[in-house]
Amino acid sequence: MDFLKKLQWRYATKHMNGTKVSNDKLDVILNAIQLAPNSIGIQPFKVFVVESEDVRKKIHASACPQPQIIEGSHLLVFAAREELTNDEVEEYVNRIATKRNVPVESLGDFKKMIMSVQGMSKDDYATWAAKQTYIALGFGLVAAAEVEVDSTPMEGFSAPAMDEILGLRAKGYRSSVLLALGYRDSKTDYLVNAAKVRKSNSALFEMI
Amino acid sequence: MDFLKKLQWRYATKHMNGTKVSNDKLDVILNAIQLAPNSIGIQPFKVFVVESEDVRKKIHASACPQPQIIEGSHLLVFAAREELTNDEVEEYVNRIATKRNVPVESLGDFKKMIMSVQGMSKDDYATWAAKQTYIALGFGLVAAAEVEVDSTPMEGFSAPAMDEILGLRAKGYRSSVLLALGYRDSKTDYLVNAAKVRKSNSALFEMI
Repeated sequence: MDFLKKLQWRYATKHMNGTKVSNDKLDVILNAIQLAPNSIGIQPFKVFVVESEDVRKKIHASACPQPQIIEGSHLLVFAAREELTNDEVEEYVNRIATKRNVPVESLGDFKKMIMSVQGMSKDDYATWAAKQTYIALGFGLVAAAEVEVDSTPMEGFSAPAMDEILGLRAKGYRSSVLLALGYRDSKTDYLVNAAKVRKSNSALFEMI
Repeated sequence: MDFLKKLQWRYATKHMNGTKVSNDKLDVILNAIQLAPNSIGIQPFKVFVVESEDVRKKIHASACPQPQIIEGSHLLVFAAREELTNDEVEEYVNRIATKRNVPVESLGDFKKMIMSVQGMSKDDYATWAAKQTYIALGFGLVAAAEVEVDSTPMEGFSAPAMDEILGLRAKGYRSSVLLALGYRDSKTDYLVNAAKVRKSNSALFEMI
């Protein structure tokens, strides 16, 4: 299947059949998420990869009643940072210096630029960080289609309940968006043969 | 090149060489953007595909001084809607009914659910819509890598200046993020051979 055919093949799966996504395929999806770019490169988020049935049941019971949470085999919870600490900046700048074999001192201006972000309020920083998780979500969605794994992106969940279950706030994170991974249940999913609905080219794009 | 190799190959290109991206490749990128999923499927955004050198020069002069704006061949400006009108809801629900060959009446509950979004303030709606553009940005970035076109996602621009140049506010849009498309200039781009810097698996992912 070529690239665009795979994107046509994917859809927001409504029912999954419990088949487990292999570790090889999961690795491709997580690798793609790791390779997603983000503003200033700080990757201001973490991805909780929930395979535990117990934890998914808890999430299903109190944070998100969608069936894919338990019918899929893995649930990715994207969690945005709510602040940028000095330690994070130091670690990041040192990592760049090591990876690229340049003196830390040469990154002084870049470091100052990053630190300017620290003026943001927690809410603004978390919103900015959440946007970065959506790029990573996009990479994860395309990667899942690439390895023919079904997936469902979900915004409709209780963030406070999710944050509580995963202990996110205490760690300085806020859940932003979910991606369930698994395989479509062709018998019960009413969307399995539904035509894709998208805006026309002329409605979505303006050529200048 | 396989999928992950292409994602390794892509990087935030800092200098481009002016070579034009072909219409065939541009089509793949725009198609992928169109196929990106989004919450409730309303696609609350528009993508301005700026090929005009005059307009890109204006953008470069007053909204974003990054060289890729003029060294690339196309600049995609993702613009988020700032409200959801009744007309948009009607058009969307009618489009679903037509595409999927179902009676409009059967979509009553879905329509009500969509309309609940109308309670949001313009700022909140624009932020939510901007997040949806980041998924589409992710799809565009992967698609560009897929067809071996270089690209640079950019948040660092003056949104008021961009909105002014493209007349966005009058149309109910706010610019959210940019994607320059073109080809890397291997001679002048200091990042062309730089190692990718990403968090380690254990820092980015938590397996549960």
